[in-house]
Amino acid sequence: MDRATLPKEPRALRALVRAGEWQTTTEGLAPGYVQANLAIVPKDLAFDFLLFCQRNPQPCPVLEVMEAGSPEPRQTAPGADLRSDVPRYRVYEHGELVAEVTDIGDRWQEDFVSFLLGCSFSFESAMLAAGIPLRHLQAGHDVPVYVTNRDTVTAGAFAGPLVVSMRPVHHSQVVRAVQTTSRFPGVHGAPVHIGDPAEIGITDLDSPQWGARTAVREGEVPVFWACGVTPQAVALASKPPLMITHAAGHMFLTDLEDAHLAVL
Amino acid sequence: MDRATLPKEPRALRALVRAGEWQTTTEGLAPGYVQANLAIVPKDLAFDFLLFCQRNPQPCPVLEVMEAGSPEPRQTAPGADLRSDVPRYRVYEHGELVAEVTDIGDRWQEDFVSFLLGCSFSFESAMLAAGIPLRHLQAGHDVPVYVTNRDTVTAGAFAGPLVVSMRPVHHSQVVRAVQTTSRFPGVHGAPVHIGDPAEIGITDLDSPQWGARTAVREGEVPVFWACGVTPQAVALASKPPLMITHAAGHMFLTDLEDAHLAVL
Repeated sequence: MDRATLPKEPRALRALVRAGEWQTTTEGLAPGYVQANLAIVPKDLAFDFLLFCQRNPQPCPVLEVMEAGSPEPRQTAPGADLRSDVPRYRVYEHGELVAEVTDIGDRWQEDFVSFLLGCSFSFESAMLAAGIPLRHLQAGHDVPVYVTNRDTVTAGAFAGPLVVSMRPVHHSQVVRAVQTTSRFPGVHGAPVHIGDPAEIGITDLDSPQWGARTAVREGEVPVFWACGVTPQAVALASKPPLMITHAAGHMFLTDLEDAHLAVL
Repeated sequence: MDRATLPKEPRALRALVRAGEWQTTTEGLAPGYVQANLAIVPKDLAFDFLLFCQRNPQPCPVLEVMEAGSPEPRQTAPGADLRSDVPRYRVYEHGELVAEVTDIGDRWQEDFVSFLLGCSFSFESAMLAAGIPLRHLQAGHDVPVYVTNRDTVTAGAFAGPLVVSMRPVHHSQVVRAVQTTSRFPGVHGAPVHIGDPAEIGITDLDSPQWGARTAVREGEVPVFWACGVTPQAVALASKPPLMITHAAGHMFLTDLEDAHLAVL
C-alpha cells in the first residue's frame, strides 16, 4: 500500500496493521494523533519498570500501562490489540534479540504487562507547527541519538545512562523550542540540555550511537531531548528472561490527539 | 514546643519528629518546602497502587515511591526514615483503622512499599503568592472535601469515586487560580471543575464529607481540585490486609522546594 492512499484515522490504520497490510514504519501516519513506544515485560518485573518510568519521566513518559494479561489499551485506543496492532515487534530473551515478527499472538503470556510510552513524533509536530524546522525530517533520515554521561535514577534492577536525541535549532528559535516542547511532558517535554555536547559527555556530535549524523550549521545550537531509547536500553541491560518491544519507527497508533497531551 | 520557635528547615524538623518532640499537624511548617501524603502497602498490592496513581495523576500525584523494604526517600529527603519521621500514622487492617501511632518501626515489614504523594499545601502557597486569598486558612479550619459522581480510572483492585476539595475564588481571580495551579501538576495541578457543584454530583456545598463548611460569598465561584483523600479512600475500600498512612494533616516534610515542582 502507498502512504498517500492510507486512511488518516488511527483506528482504520490499526485495522490494516492487524490484517498484515501495513508492516513498515509509521512516521507521518495519522497526523495529529499520538504514536507510542511499546515495551512488554513479565509481571514480576513490571513494578520495577513502572517505578523506573515514574522516576525518569523525561525519557520514559508513560501514556498507559495495561493490567497483567491485557492486550487492550482501554485509555488510549479502546478495542485495539497490542498482540497484532504494531507493525513490527522485536522479541528479546535475556537481553538478546531472538526474533523480529509482525504478530505476537502465539507468544502472548497471561503475565505480560504492556507499557505504552510517549514518542517524539508528537512534540516534533508541535515544533513544526511553531515554525521550527527539523533537519532530520527535511533530510529524510532518523534523528541522531547519543548515550550521555548522565545517569537515570535507578529502580530495582533497572539502571543505566540517559540517552538523548539532538536537533539543531537556530539561536533565534531556541527559546521557542523550549516553550513549545515544555507543553508536552507526556512525549519527553522540555530539552534536557542546550549547547555544548561535552557538558553531557558527548565527545563527537558526528558519531551518534543510533540514527544519522546531522550537521549543526552556522547560527544553530544543538538542543538535546531525553529519548525513548533510554527505557529499552536500560531494560535490556538488565537481561530480563523475556521482553518484547516495537521495532524502531514501527510505532503503535493511539486514538489520543496530540493536543490532549498539552499541559497548557 | 511552640510553632514560632521551630526550625524552618525540613531536615531539622524531621529530627524533632523522629525524637518524638513534634507529634501534631504540619501545616505552615517548613515554608517553601513540599509536604507529602504517605501511603504504605504490601508489595503484592504495590504495582496496582502505582498503576492507579499513574492513571489518576490529579488526585494521586506521585512524588516518590520507595523500593520494597526501603524506608528512605532518597529522591525527596535523603537520610530520612519513613518509619519515624511522620508525626502521626494510621494503621489499617482489612480497611479498618486499628491503631494511631507516632512510630511504625515495630510494625515494619520487608515487603512494605511506601508512596509519597503531593499535597495541596504547596499549591496553596502558590495561590497565596499570586494574591488569591484562601478562606479556610483565614478561618483557621480544614478545607471542605467532597465525594463526586466522577469515577477514577480503575487499576486492579483499586476503584472508586474522585474526591475533591473546594475553595471559593472571586470571579475576577478564577483565571489566575487556574494558571497558578496548572504550573504544579505534582501537587494536584489545575482544578477539575469550576462553578455549579451539581455538575459533579455535589448536592449540598454546606455538607462536606470531610473538613469544615466554607461559605461561597457574593461574587465568588466554587472551584474544585482533585484531593489526596482519593487514593486513601480507594485503597482502603479494597480492604487490603494491611495499609499504613499518615494521619490527616500530619504530613511528611520533604527537602523538595515548592519551586522544584513547577513545570513552567
